Formats: sequence, structure tokens, C-alpha cells
Amino acid sequence: MTAPELADWRTYDAPTLPRVLDAALRCFAEQGYHGTSIRDLASEAGLSVPGVYHHHKSKQEILVALVMAVMDELLGRSEAALASAPEDPSAQFDALVESLLRFHMFRRQQAFVASTEIRSLAPESRRQYVDRRDEQQRMLDRVVVAGADAGVFGTPYPLDAARAVATLCVGVASWYREDGPLDPDELVARHLVLARGLVQG
Amino acid sequence: MTAPELADWRTYDAPTLPRVLDAALRCFAEQGYHGTSIRDLASEAGLSVPGVYHHHKSKQEILVALVMAVMDELLGRSEAALASAPEDPSAQFDALVESLLRFHMFRRQQAFVASTEIRSLAPESRRQYVDRRDEQQRMLDRVVVAGADAGVFGTPYPLDAARAVATLCVGVASWYREDGPLDPDELVARHLVLARGLVQG
Repeated sequence: MTAPELADWRTYDAPTLPRVLDAALRCFAEQGYHGTSIRDLASEAGLSVPGVYHHHKSKQEILVALVMAVMDELLGRSEAALASAPEDPSAQFDALVESLLRFHMFRRQQAFVASTEIRSLAPESRRQYVDRRDEQQRMLDRVVVAGADAGVFGTPYPLDAARAVATLCVGVASWYREDGPLDPDELVARHLVLARGLVQG
Repeated sequence: MTAPELADWRTYDAPTLPRVLDAALRCFAEQGYHGTSIRDLASEAGLSVPGVYHHHKSKQEILVALVMAVMDELLGRSEAALASAPEDPSAQFDALVESLLRFHMFRRQQAFVASTEIRSLAPESRRQYVDRRDEQQRMLDRVVVAGADAGVFGTPYPLDAARAVATLCVGVASWYREDGPLDPDELVARHLVLARGLVQG
């Protein structure tokens, strides 16, 4: 997470992961954590095996650094989106949903690796990762519950609806293509309508 | 897909995969396709390595047989659900969504492996798998479009809504636990409300 990104949560330039993490992202996305050797990683990064070990103690440490960097960016953008929106629940909801949608459109590979390789994290790191993911869910929960309490959202099940909204946004990563038929802004607009349908009840 | 399952699309007994595919399911779910050797598979199945090769030519063939068996069951249940419901779009929608929800609650590991290991299928098998997955999506598309045409569903974006409904149902596999707080029937009831919200527009 770099300051310029936080300054504009809507803008996605090329991913800015350090060299080894960027190589790990591609390797894990293609053949999975257990199917990737440190030799594969070094080759993808254009480094020697000792070159990789110079920066990271182990493949496990690389996975942890990668998924935590992904989660830092996600949470940083979500916080910036909320901070940029007026205080009312509808505006907060729209900003947060838009940020989640854009992240899962423009960080597809990151989202795929983070969600599929939770299983490969050692227990302590897995707990830390899941805690941060829960933090993201709670941001959304708070906004939906505030809207339901204020009578702005009609859903009788605010927490189920908030989880479904997260699922909708995360799901975009599984089918969005930059050369697809929908312009990104149009895609965001349609999915905001869908997300609002989930909280209307 | 066995006939008794088709006769009752709501009932899930223990999975009925053949021994080697059942072992492959557990191995691939835990360490991924590329992280699993034929030796791992044989050990998990309680067979010798030649015993595994007696039934399957390769690890790739086992993956193909597994994901196709999962897809056969999904499509078979979806068709049975549609056949069991009255002809009107609302009833067809509810039956199909309920079937998709139950499948992703009770076949979580199958759904995880099928969706994460598409990348590991050889091109021809991948095409076949994606075609069948598209068939499932088109079933849902047809029901939502019929409802929108009939004025029963108000969504201005029936195809985006139909995809979001599929995402909602598939997403259940990522968090549902049989010992969780929600009774399966209550979970289905709440998610039917959420799914209807997506097509209301």
C-alpha cells in the first residue's frame, strides 16, 4: 500500500508488488503454492535461488508476505473510499461497494491466490489473515446495519445481506476480463444496483 | 449421478464418488492438483500406485473424471429441481436457486476443487468443463429472462442479475459449515430472499 494509492482509491496502475512477491503471485496463480518450488519462483523473478533466500527465509514467508500485502491494499482502499464519502449510510455503502468491485476487477489474480491459498498458510498466519479479512467484512456489516437501523435499507437480514454483497464483489474477480463487453464504470454502475437490491429486502 | 439422487434433488447423503475420485477430491482440496502426486493419491485411497493406474491412465484423467462427475451431479439436480416446480418463472427461479444453494452447502469441497483447478485442466477438457458450467448458467439466465419478460422480475439487467444469483449460491460454499449457527432450511429461506432482491431491480 503506497500513499498515492490511498489518495485515490479508484485508480489502479500496474501492481506495485516487490519483485519476488510479483513472481510468486504469477507462480501460485498458475500452479498453486504446493506446486511451486523456490527454483520456479527464482526463475520467474529472474533471480538465483540464493537471491530469493537473501530476501525471504522460506516459501511460506513469501506466501504470508504476498497475501498480507494484498489484504493491506484492499483494506487501505476500503478505508479511503469510506473516508471520501458523505456520512449517510447509502453514500457509505455505495463508496465501499464500488471500492470492493474495482479491487476485484483490477486485482483478480491477487484475489484468486489469497482466497485459494488460505489453506496453505501455517495456523498462526492463517488466523492473522482471516482476522484481516473479517475486518473487511465488518466494515461492510457496520454500513449495512447502520442503513437498516436508519430505515434506509429494508432488509430483515442485514448481516446475511452484507455477506452476500461481499460475495457479489469478490465474485467479479472470477469472470471480469479487461477486454470484456462491459466498460468498467458501467459494470460498477450495474453492480451497485444489484448490491442495493441485496440490502433492500 | 445416480437415479435416486435425481428422484430427490433436495436430499444429500454421503458423497458417492468412486474410491479414487473421492481420495483425489480430498488431496486436491488440501494441497492442490500440482501439489498432489499419484503416490499421495494411492496412499489416500488405500491402494498401490499400480492399483490407481489400473483404473486411470494419469493424474490428469483423474482430475477430468472428478470435475465432470461434480458437474454431472450439479446439472442433474438443477434439472430435477426445475422439473419439480410449476411452470411460472418465480417458482422455477426459487427451485433452481434452492438447488444451487443446497449443492454448494453440501458439496463444498467438490465446488472448491472444481473452481480452483479449472486452470489445471488440459485445454480440451477445460473447454468441455466450461461448456457445462455455462450450461448451468444458461439455465438460470433463461429463468430470469423469462421472469423479466413476464414483468415478474423488475431488473433492467437480467443477465447481470442471473450471474450475480449464481455467484451468491456458489459463494455459500466458501463459508457454510454444517455446525454453523444457521439451520440449512433457514439459510435457504434467507438466501432466497436475497436472490429475489437481485432480480427485482
